[in-house]
Amino acid sequence: MSLLTVGSVAFDKIETPFGKTDKIIGGAATYITLAASYFTKKNNLVGIVGADFPQEMIDSLKAHGVDTAGLEVDPNGKTFFWSGRYHNDMNSRDTLETQLNVLENYEPTIPEQYQDCEFLMLGNMVPAVQHMTLNKFHKKPKFVMLDTMNLWMDIAMDDLKGIIAEIDCLTINDSEARQLSGDYSLKKAANTIMAMGPKTLIIKKGEHGALLFQGERTFFCPALPLEEVFDPTGAGDTFAGGFIGYLAQTDDFSFENMKRGIIYGSAMASFCVEKFGVERIQNLTEREIDDRVMEFVQLSSFEIN
Amino acid sequence: MSLLTVGSVAFDKIETPFGKTDKIIGGAATYITLAASYFTKKNNLVGIVGADFPQEMIDSLKAHGVDTAGLEVDPNGKTFFWSGRYHNDMNSRDTLETQLNVLENYEPTIPEQYQDCEFLMLGNMVPAVQHMTLNKFHKKPKFVMLDTMNLWMDIAMDDLKGIIAEIDCLTINDSEARQLSGDYSLKKAANTIMAMGPKTLIIKKGEHGALLFQGERTFFCPALPLEEVFDPTGAGDTFAGGFIGYLAQTDDFSFENMKRGIIYGSAMASFCVEKFGVERIQNLTEREIDDRVMEFVQLSSFEIN
Repeated sequence: MSLLTVGSVAFDKIETPFGKTDKIIGGAATYITLAASYFTKKNNLVGIVGADFPQEMIDSLKAHGVDTAGLEVDPNGKTFFWSGRYHNDMNSRDTLETQLNVLENYEPTIPEQYQDCEFLMLGNMVPAVQHMTLNKFHKKPKFVMLDTMNLWMDIAMDDLKGIIAEIDCLTINDSEARQLSGDYSLKKAANTIMAMGPKTLIIKKGEHGALLFQGERTFFCPALPLEEVFDPTGAGDTFAGGFIGYLAQTDDFSFENMKRGIIYGSAMASFCVEKFGVERIQNLTEREIDDRVMEFVQLSSFEIN
Repeated sequence: MSLLTVGSVAFDKIETPFGKTDKIIGGAATYITLAASYFTKKNNLVGIVGADFPQEMIDSLKAHGVDTAGLEVDPNGKTFFWSGRYHNDMNSRDTLETQLNVLENYEPTIPEQYQDCEFLMLGNMVPAVQHMTLNKFHKKPKFVMLDTMNLWMDIAMDDLKGIIAEIDCLTINDSEARQLSGDYSLKKAANTIMAMGPKTLIIKKGEHGALLFQGERTFFCPALPLEEVFDPTGAGDTFAGGFIGYLAQTDDFSFENMKRGIIYGSAMASFCVEKFGVERIQNLTEREIDDRVMEFVQLSSFEIN
């Protein structure tokens, strides 16, 4: 099945306790499409960059099978830029600088040839823009997944609830789930959020793993305890890309298959954090991914007598 | 196999976002022996209380099969008292008051009939007292497990490392593992700590589950996402009691069996937090425990094609 990802393509500048980068390639849609490329061959990208964006990165996306016909290049604009510094715990960070640049007045255009995509991933953006994007489809894709963040809950909660009502799957982190629902218990929060629209909810807990909720069913996937967590940037997007890429590959919405998607997504995220930016997820082999998935099997399997 | 638990028996006064208690029964050894009582019938307790401690609670421990011959009652003293208030996230708390009372100069005595116990659980206490207690055994029990806390890392690190070198299994939380090892990565921290002595390490992560480490092997057990977490007091001790009680019942130190112990311990802890104090773990049925364990199976099981 074909996947379309709509989201940011960006420059990031990152500081972690282990080092810092100059401007490197980032953006939700970059991580999502790269991660998904290991699973689905019909992998389309809609976004915008400025004239400063390197052609080599676009070529790299193409080399991963990503169709970049929907990636606009604004010849007069500069690419979205984010700079941040991670705290010692690597679970929290400060934003040092954000330059919206070409994203400021961006309204995604859906090329005609993407109209029949079955899987749509709406990366984190202004909720009204996510909603507008979904409304541009003549027919709603059969699986619509959305990522968002606390900022929109602070300043655009009504818009956010508007788009959440229209989607099949929402992915947010644990503190966002609490903020969105007003419930402290994640179990209650999940029920409250699913009542807002999405049949499936994924709560990401960073180094503590991820929870998948669907109706009364719950699945927990641990994060792999790693020797080195070098840079968490993009881990959530990489997770989402692995998950929806796996779903697009298998076209199976059963809870059992969604669990597998969560495992593959978590495996992809575990690679992502091993190096700065997208470096690690640009050069993976099928074998490496399969071996990593087996580590998840070993980590979580047990038998009750 | 027989289990001996040495630790505090106490009064607690607890405030959570959901309510507060008057003085209720608490103490590490109380939670540990009650949790272990569902698994092992040879369940011995060494500790001390004051004249103010209610006979009914001692009777309740006995009714759970706990041998209280090692529980001293100081006719002139008052029982150890702790009072605390949990924050909204239920993962952190402030101590409002601590009265050591009879614990101040307490030196555990091991009754002769407990000398041959195979499993020893040293609940959280002054590390030098834990060490002194272990030295009172003519022959070291075949499995010695120890719980401790950050306070002793702050003020008695050398003593703590002294006793840690002598034990088989250590249980601490994630921030304590980081403090004890000086490593941020829990994987590295685990290797550093196991090099200090214990072959097995359990890192408790509260609502995020628990990690079991043994040599190169790692197992992750999630915490059950609960509708209500009412009072986390004693959850770690209940977990430890369920774990070592299960090991004492099965007398099997294989990694596969230890994993099962972690699951049973986590199931016991998930009951503990549903009510204040020991209330919930005083009245469990085998059926309830088995059903709860099946919830862990459902929560974590998946199959890769």
